[in-house]
Amino acid sequence: MKIFCVAGSLRQGSLNQTLLNYAVQALNDIGVDVVTAPFKDFDLPLYNGDLDTEKTHPENLLKFKNLMADTQASIIVSPEYNHSIPGPVKNLVDWVSRLRPMPWKNREVLLMSASPSMSGGRMGLWQLRIPLTACGAFVFPEMFCLPKAHEAFEGGRLKDAKTAEILHATLKNFVQHLQS
Amino acid sequence: MKIFCVAGSLRQGSLNQTLLNYAVQALNDIGVDVVTAPFKDFDLPLYNGDLDTEKTHPENLLKFKNLMADTQASIIVSPEYNHSIPGPVKNLVDWVSRLRPMPWKNREVLLMSASPSMSGGRMGLWQLRIPLTACGAFVFPEMFCLPKAHEAFEGGRLKDAKTAEILHATLKNFVQHLQS
Amino acid sequence: MKIFCVAGSLRQGSLNQTLLNYAVQALNDIGVDVVTAPFKDFDLPLYNGDLDTEKTHPENLLKFKNLMADTQASIIVSPEYNHSIPGPVKNLVDWVSRLRPMPWKNREVLLMSASPSMSGGRMGLWQLRIPLTACGAFVFPEMFCLPKAHEAFEGGRLKDAKTAEILHATLKNFVQHLQS
Amino acid sequence: MKIFCVAGSLRQGSLNQTLLNYAVQALNDIGVDVVTAPFKDFDLPLYNGDLDTEKTHPENLLKFKNLMADTQASIIVSPEYNHSIPGPVKNLVDWVSRLRPMPWKNREVLLMSASPSMSGGRMGLWQLRIPLTACGAFVFPEMFCLPKAHEAFEGGRLKDAKTAEILHATLKNFVQHLQS
Repeated sequence: MKIFCVAGSLRQGSLNQTLLNYAVQALNDIGVDVVTAPFKDFDLPLYNGDLDTEKTHPENLLKFKNLMADTQASIIVSPEYNHSIPGPVKNLVDWVSRLRPMPWKNREVLLMSASPSMSGGRMGLWQLRIPLTACGAFVFPEMFCLPKAHEAFEGGRLKDAKTAEILHATLKNFVQHLQS
Repeated sequence: MKIFCVAGSLRQGSLNQTLLNYAVQALNDIGVDVVTAPFKDFDLPLYNGDLDTEKTHPENLLKFKNLMADTQASIIVSPEYNHSIPGPVKNLVDWVSRLRPMPWKNREVLLMSASPSMSGGRMGLWQLRIPLTACGAFVFPEMFCLPKAHEAFEGGRLKDAKTAEILHATLKNFVQHLQS
Repeated sequence: MKIFCVAGSLRQGSLNQTLLNYAVQALNDIGVDVVTAPFKDFDLPLYNGDLDTEKTHPENLLKFKNLMADTQASIIVSPEYNHSIPGPVKNLVDWVSRLRPMPWKNREVLLMSASPSMSGGRMGLWQLRIPLTACGAFVFPEMFCLPKAHEAFEGGRLKDAKTAEILHATLKNFVQHLQS
Repeated sequence: MKIFCVAGSLRQGSLNQTLLNYAVQALNDIGVDVVTAPFKDFDLPLYNGDLDTEKTHPENLLKFKNLMADTQASIIVSPEYNHSIPGPVKNLVDWVSRLRPMPWKNREVLLMSASPSMSGGRMGLWQLRIPLTACGAFVFPEMFCLPKAHEAFEGGRLKDAKTAEILHATLKNFVQHLQS
């Protein structure tokens, strides 16, 4: 079992990347292998139909596709921008959706988010479900959202035990679903 | 009365740009001035929190802001990608949302789309309403969606008289609302 | 200026009704008249196309229409059920949408919600915007959501001063918008 | 393999019920058993928290639960009202969500719709995904939407061969997913 994990934020010290790092450790602890890379490795030009030919597909797009192809499922940790999907995350989803065979088709995906807000970015994840589902992905019903994320970590660990427990349960439920 | 109009597609021969060109002509015909520029003029890097300082704001962002500041309302013609907002359009909305005072706040916005599909990109526009509304814009309830857009134009004109009539009515309703 | 206000919950001691009662007082305090009635006064059968004729329209539907007709705007306080619009609220919106002239058309509407959850029912309000907007209503961009609503009141007053301030500001912004 | 199927419309001659009848026949033809009943059999009062006790749960709610319990998956054929979920369908989803163990949890669900519009009610289905997913259901990514449904049938059969083919493929894909 190998899961491809990515956090959709480009800035240094991203809370979403911090959450992903913690989740990767938790996955390793239950014997799940993880393939991951920082989001900047998948930096892509803004989608442009004129670049959408096999010859002109950006190299980073193929890198993303190849890492994904080597795994059985995906975890996407995405910020919420303006109650919706971040432009950079949607841009990646859109580029990937242009490959054939469509990489999102039948893909099992778990969504997570971290946000300073009280809702933890949940509204953004509901928006992100739409294009992934439209591309044929099986987006896991459960989602993990971390509210007040700027105060949630200490030394890379979640400070609140109950929050950590919910995250571990979500990861375990997803992995069990993949194995069923 | 001056309206800032932009079509959110980067490719040459974009159907959304074609629709906008037609709408601009229709607006001029009823005495409304238009400020517009091709979407590539607003090419921006993927949003990155580390670039989000007054000193590092991309020049194209300020260009967009200044064109908008000179007008009373906006029309955004946006494609639909995977039943949702195109990455490049969301990236622009997100960048603009970082300026202060927030340019979307109290902005009157009309949304339109063109798509080869039967629904004309309507689902994407519903998704686009969310971040604009979250930023405080007044997004006009009526939206114009052009289905089968690849067959809809001839010499830049809408072939179907009824469709053209609906577009003209939508523009007129929006302008009347702005004047009320 | 008269606003028609309704809270979309049938149960006794509804938190949404409590929030509405508080808002009505706040509106009166700034000189705004309110027309209101408990939600059970608008109890309607489940929408059924076979009952949708002028002769068979439920009496409570006409009561709702008449109260609304006598006012310049509406406030709907709606619970969130399963991250979405409550069935009873949607049923009312749907019935009203069948009248001609369409009562939602050009209607200015403010949405509010109260919920025991941390997000205060915000996701449900985003879903409620859709049918109202589709019916031509101008749904105000700002929405007021009360999180942890089961602990928020004491003697009908909001305990937290900052929360009360936000509610008052939202009501004032809506009223100013109506007057502009 | 047994699937519980219901069409969410109360009126006689519902296009959604007609679509369901056709789908039931198609399922039988590929060896899938179906449990079904007309929507009026699940007529429920508007959800009211005061009725939400084990003693006061409506009889029709338990009938729905028992039929569902006897099957491995569900198909819901739902109209679209005002670009959203019909009130009566949401009311049913909400009532069911109050039972324990939660019947929607881990439920495999296929959504379909029929509508006179060009988009076939697709927007309504996207809204219906939200509460079902929030309740833990696995809503199948593919959805079948029948546009211009008022002209689509002749003697209970779909007139257009290509449309029928898409419906059959969707049902087959869902059944294969259930068997995998």
